[in-house]
Amino acid sequence: MKIVKTINEVRKQVKEWKSLGQSVGMVPTMGYLHEGHKSLMDCARKENDKVVVSIFVNPMQFGPTEDLAEYPRDLEHDAEICESAGVDLIFHPEPEEMYADDFCSFVDMDTLTEGLCGRTRPVHFRGVCTVVTKLFNIVTPDRAYFGQKDGQQLAVIRRMVRDLNMDIQIVGCPIVREEDGLAKSSRNTYLSPEERKAALILNQAVRLGAEMAETEKDAAKVVLAMKEKIQSEPLARIDYVEAVDALSMQPVERLTGGCMLAMAVYIGKTRLIDNVLV
Amino acid sequence: MKIVKTINEVRKQVKEWKSLGQSVGMVPTMGYLHEGHKSLMDCARKENDKVVVSIFVNPMQFGPTEDLAEYPRDLEHDAEICESAGVDLIFHPEPEEMYADDFCSFVDMDTLTEGLCGRTRPVHFRGVCTVVTKLFNIVTPDRAYFGQKDGQQLAVIRRMVRDLNMDIQIVGCPIVREEDGLAKSSRNTYLSPEERKAALILNQAVRLGAEMAETEKDAAKVVLAMKEKIQSEPLARIDYVEAVDALSMQPVERLTGGCMLAMAVYIGKTRLIDNVLV
Repeated sequence: MKIVKTINEVRKQVKEWKSLGQSVGMVPTMGYLHEGHKSLMDCARKENDKVVVSIFVNPMQFGPTEDLAEYPRDLEHDAEICESAGVDLIFHPEPEEMYADDFCSFVDMDTLTEGLCGRTRPVHFRGVCTVVTKLFNIVTPDRAYFGQKDGQQLAVIRRMVRDLNMDIQIVGCPIVREEDGLAKSSRNTYLSPEERKAALILNQAVRLGAEMAETEKDAAKVVLAMKEKIQSEPLARIDYVEAVDALSMQPVERLTGGCMLAMAVYIGKTRLIDNVLV
Repeated sequence: MKIVKTINEVRKQVKEWKSLGQSVGMVPTMGYLHEGHKSLMDCARKENDKVVVSIFVNPMQFGPTEDLAEYPRDLEHDAEICESAGVDLIFHPEPEEMYADDFCSFVDMDTLTEGLCGRTRPVHFRGVCTVVTKLFNIVTPDRAYFGQKDGQQLAVIRRMVRDLNMDIQIVGCPIVREEDGLAKSSRNTYLSPEERKAALILNQAVRLGAEMAETEKDAAKVVLAMKEKIQSEPLARIDYVEAVDALSMQPVERLTGGCMLAMAVYIGKTRLIDNVLV
């Protein structure tokens, strides 16, 4: 497994692989890898000749009051996980390699980015779309793998790839959870032991919503029950709980298939997200 | 020469060429081709194994009060010019092929798009960046050719390609002029005989600016002289005359090299542009 820091090194390696007719799968990450990321790499490993993981904490997708500086980093451990997953190349650029001082271009989207996390994090998806476009142009993968945990991000990237005619297959992979149900997230490391217990309320509310949705098709009723569930936890503060169309991210009134029940909840100062497709 | 209307047909043809190791040059156009476009094709023809011309009047780069409906079209004549230039493939999509009903992604830029044409045409460069990104992703050219006549567009596309790590060489080609000096433009067809004469004022002002700039380094003085020249023509109304850095499109005070003197001038209802590098 190679670890490279420059765009030129990545391009050179990928061109060599492609000249041999080998397919390339990519897993874009911000590092501090966990079993959620590992599941993406495993999927990429099965479906491609070569697997590239990018590890880059992208400044552009953090708002000015967000946790860019504190975001956890551990390249050594990340490399072990990639090695064990049979990854061929890690691309780990410095911010200067990705963003020149006079960088001023961006990729963005209306509609899908207006609600949910986009409402609370107004610059977030512009940063995501821009860096993912850059990474796709650098790595030129045949397939790229994203987790359903960031459900809105997955929908946004699918739409961007379709709208901008990027010749890349986007593969969404299921949420990976801890044994007690908490969705795996690099941000779980911020939680105190007490908060870690309180964070279970997200998955409990998601499960409640999924169960209710089997018979109750009124989205407002299901969302209300999920909110009440979350409010029963004193350490939890709701950012949003919403029922949306899973492709367009627009609010739905009826849960008639192809919907996502999605939430963001602060546990103390830590903002966690979870969702389920119904 | 092939003329195709679907993205799939373009991709299939280009992949076949690339599998044979052939290089691809691209000339993106809005059609109604003239000798300016022809010079781009000639340049592409010399430097690449295969040449693709796209002909697409892109709705997204026209503002609501602009000339989208009237923009001149003549595919038959365009095809003759392409054939004579040795073009291999024309991509001529319908708007529906390029923009789905729920299309909502875009590529855009700060800084370079804020002045000059970007001030008068606030959605223009978002439309240009978005459609050029789409065309690049569809055609995947090795090189793409743009005229210096649209000087701000050329700078914007160069910056977009750099910022977003598109692996494409952007080639800028000199302005092509009528014998009397008027820069070739599809919009020249809008001019009445009287306006056609009046339109010479653009090139006269450009020449005046270039001559003055050989000795006069105060940008304001040169711009003022150019404006006075244009105002001597009763049918001309200035949109802007500016001296900018040729890479960043930011206003300059001193003409110390790497600058562009640029203008947009209405002749009657027709908005024409011209510029010179000094």
